[in-house]
Parts: sequence; C-alpha cells; structure tokens
Amino acid sequence: MNKIKNIAVVGGTHGNEYSGIYLLKKWHKNNAFLNRSSLVIETLFANPKGFQENKRYLDCDLNRQFRQDDLVNTKLTNYEQTRAKVINAQLGPKGNAKTDFIIDLHNTTSNMGPTLILLKCDDFNKKMGAYVLSKMPEAMIVFEDQVPMQEHYFLASIANQGVIVEIGPQPQSVIRQDVLDWMETMTHTIIDFVELYNKNNLPELPKTYDAYHYIESLTLPLDENGERIGMVHKNVQDNDFKPINFGDPIFTLFDGSEISYTGDYQAYPHFINEAAYYDNNLAMSLARKKQVKIA
Amino acid sequence: MNKIKNIAVVGGTHGNEYSGIYLLKKWHKNNAFLNRSSLVIETLFANPKGFQENKRYLDCDLNRQFRQDDLVNTKLTNYEQTRAKVINAQLGPKGNAKTDFIIDLHNTTSNMGPTLILLKCDDFNKKMGAYVLSKMPEAMIVFEDQVPMQEHYFLASIANQGVIVEIGPQPQSVIRQDVLDWMETMTHTIIDFVELYNKNNLPELPKTYDAYHYIESLTLPLDENGERIGMVHKNVQDNDFKPINFGDPIFTLFDGSEISYTGDYQAYPHFINEAAYYDNNLAMSLARKKQVKIA
Repeated sequence: MNKIKNIAVVGGTHGNEYSGIYLLKKWHKNNAFLNRSSLVIETLFANPKGFQENKRYLDCDLNRQFRQDDLVNTKLTNYEQTRAKVINAQLGPKGNAKTDFIIDLHNTTSNMGPTLILLKCDDFNKKMGAYVLSKMPEAMIVFEDQVPMQEHYFLASIANQGVIVEIGPQPQSVIRQDVLDWMETMTHTIIDFVELYNKNNLPELPKTYDAYHYIESLTLPLDENGERIGMVHKNVQDNDFKPINFGDPIFTLFDGSEISYTGDYQAYPHFINEAAYYDNNLAMSLARKKQVKIA
Repeated sequence: MNKIKNIAVVGGTHGNEYSGIYLLKKWHKNNAFLNRSSLVIETLFANPKGFQENKRYLDCDLNRQFRQDDLVNTKLTNYEQTRAKVINAQLGPKGNAKTDFIIDLHNTTSNMGPTLILLKCDDFNKKMGAYVLSKMPEAMIVFEDQVPMQEHYFLASIANQGVIVEIGPQPQSVIRQDVLDWMETMTHTIIDFVELYNKNNLPELPKTYDAYHYIESLTLPLDENGERIGMVHKNVQDNDFKPINFGDPIFTLFDGSEISYTGDYQAYPHFINEAAYYDNNLAMSLARKKQVKIA
C-alpha cells in the first residue's frame, strides 16, 4: 500500500446526525486540529440540504449511493444520487481516487458508544483497530468487509481506504457533548495513526484483539400488510454488543407475546432500534465476535 | 366540579412520537383497556399526516395551536392550524367542550422517565398527582399552571380538564418497550383515578408530595447571527429533575469554554436537550420544586 497523503473528513452525510456537522464547523473556526505537516486534510459537508431540512435525506439515503454502477448511471438524478456523483468527482473517482483515505462521521440512536467501522481487513485496518483500542479502550471495532471495497455502497468506499466513525447513543437532530467528544477523539486518533503508519513508527500493539464481524440484519415483526406488530425486546434494548443466544427473547409483540432468537450462532447485536432503520423496518444488525490477529 | 364522563385519549399530536400512536393501534385491536362501565372513552390520532411523513409536524407545532383566538382565526389555514380547528370541533369547543377530560400522549428525547404534566392545580389534579405517584413511585409530576386553562395553547386545554403524559428518553421515530410500558401504565392509572374520583372512593393518599412547577426555558448559546455556538454541558445532560445551583456549568461552547447558571433560585431542569426544541433553540426547561398539599 502506498503512503496515505490526501485525507477527506466527511460530516453530514446524513443531515440529522449533528456531531460531524458541528465538528466541521468547529474545525473551520480553528483548523489547528486538521493541520498535519505530512498530510493534506480536507473536509466535506456531504448533505447540506438534508441538514437545512433537518432530515437524514431528501430523496434517498446518500450513504447507499456509491456503488460503481450507480455512480455512472445517468438516470439516477434525485438529490442524493446527484450529490453522490459530485462527491465522487470531488474525492474520487472511485477506482482511481485522488483521495487516499476517507473518514466519514456518523451518529446512531443506538447505544453503541464510540464505534469504528472498518471496510477492509488488511494490515492497515487491523492495526488501526488495535491503535484506536489502545487509546480508547471503550471503543468497539466492527468489520464490514463482507463485500470488496469496490462493491460497497458507502461514501467512504470512494477511496482505496475508508472508515466510518459511528457514535451513539444520540437522538437525531441533537448535539450531546459526550458523543461529540468521543467523535473528536476518535477522528484525532485515526489521523495520528495514519501519520505513524506512514512513518512506520507505530508503538508496540497487542498481537490480537477482539472485534466484531457483520453478518446480517434482522427485520422488525410485521403483519401480512407490512405493518409493524412488535418492537425490540426490552432485554435487548441498549445492549449493543452484548451476546444473544438461541432462545433469548429479542422481540415483544404489541399483543404481549415474545419472539426468540433462533440463529445458529452467538450473535452480537448492534444498531439496536436505530431510528433511521425504521424506513426499512430493520430492528438491529448482528455480528459474530472475531479475534483479529496482527502479523 | 362535575363528574367526568367523556374522556379523549389522544396520540400522535406529534407525528414522530411513536408510543402514543402505537398504543392507539394496540387499543383498537383489543379495546378491553378502554372499556370502563362508568366512562365513555374515545381515542383520537391528532396528526396522521405528520406520522405518514415521519415528522413532528408539517407546517407548525400542532400542540401550540389551541389558543382561543387562534382557533377562531380563519386566516390560520396551514395543516396543523386546520387540524386544530377540526379537533376543537370534535372534542370541544374550547370553553364549552363536550369532552370532560383529555389525556394527550407524548414522548421526549430527554431523560424524563414517566412524567405527568398537569395544567391546573385544583383538587382533581393535585389528587391525580398523588394517586399516580402512589402507583408509579418513579413518576415525576410537573405543574404547568402558569396560565389559565383558557389561555393555554396545548391540545389538552380544549377540555375543562386535560393532562399531558410525557415519557422519555425515546429518540424520535422509535418504539422503546420500556417507554411504551410506562405510557400504558400511566394512562391506565389516570383512568383508574378518574373512576375512583368520580365515585369519591379514592384510597388514602399522602397529605403532601414533591412536584415541580415550570418557571422558564433556557436558550442554547447563539452567536450574533443566531447560529448555535455551544451545547448542553455534559454534567447536565440526562440529569432531568436533578437540581442546579448558581455557578454550576450548564453549557459548553464549541471553543471549550463553559457558561454557568446564574439564576437566583435552585432550578430543576427538564426537557434537557429535547430534539424537537432545537427549532426554537431551547436547551431545557427549568422548574422549582414545589410541595403539593392536599386539603
């Protein structure tokens, strides 16, 4: 891997996730934070119209519009599809991007704490996870490398390297100080890591650490008309990254009955009851625990 | 006061406060909950278009449209102003309402737990607070009787008696089981109370209890252009109904500095960092603690 030189820090990919938006404003007033002698760091406010209207998006989820096929499809013309093309021209183009590394800043209403989502499982990303954990022991590291970077639909997949900083719990359209502080610390830590990795000057890191590997998403209980008939079970609510096993209750129906987990593996739920996922009636994501080994 | 006969339970006054909306759906499937021999209970879904569009409101806050002057002002014609007139015709008219008592179901993103907001401080409301506390010791009782019922702009002020059930923390557009359960229990408890009060058959209640009396709202720190330059201090976040005193930090500015409370009374903040109040840049409400005495 070539050294990373050009970094883009992106906020407001979702217009009602305020931490990234307000950190960009803060860094524009005082840009010492982003001034690194060995790096060129730019910032991008991805969905300003979403923010103006205080919504995640106007027409469709911007952070699902970055598949290669979609980026070159001239028939996709709504606001977010159009923003995706412009952002791809600005930071990319995907496959041959002028930006080496993208950090995309997100919030969740789920109780996930400071979470780092990695899109590749190469040496760079594995060591980034270890370094972030060494500085933020409360952090969670999730690998979403189930598809190659080229096939990902995330904004961060425009560049050869990209990560998602995902901090919660924070209601939509709110600024919480604890969440803002976590996001600023994690962004800072990632940029420190890039500088040290470039210079081959990383401190000694543990040879292994625990992380999570995305497997699947669970749907809310629906009736035959597609109407919601239940909710996340109170035992699961807020317990992101706590394991669930076969037979554990995971949903409560409005009639009082319960639905249990029947998967064949010990699952680590996250994005539990995320407000934005109600659009698609998603109740939570499931991961397996994974031991990451550093060569 | 005449006996209460006709009750309206209202949900979805704000389209993205899901607990009331889903409880109405639940009660329509199984209406045993609302069947009381001595009462006529109807339900009303106040802002269905807000729910369809997954927003608090389309044009303006429905729960601020029920001042007498506004209800008769034919120039006020947007969606919520129009809904207010129709709801007033259906449950009211205000000042001579066919409905004796309105229970309006709300959620907050603030950490307020199960809160009951009372709009009058008469025998009926004081005893209701005591009765609810006897069944739900975790509940908070807030009096917003700073203006006469006739001058209130809340939906619940259409009737001679009305209360707001306000349960959190719950992000907008999410259903949490704990919050749903609290709301159902509190609604049930209030209706039980009305039956017992009508029959003059209340159990023995304590002669005094602690409650809160709304005083004022605090604005987020803004610059000269009206842009937010700070946030609720992390010491205050989530600490609804915990007292703040002169000199306590209440805001953190994005530049790192702090603003302290300079009020001349011990304040009990609530609606702390409520998402919906960002529209007006309100940071929190302040109350004084109050000892309620029952004659």
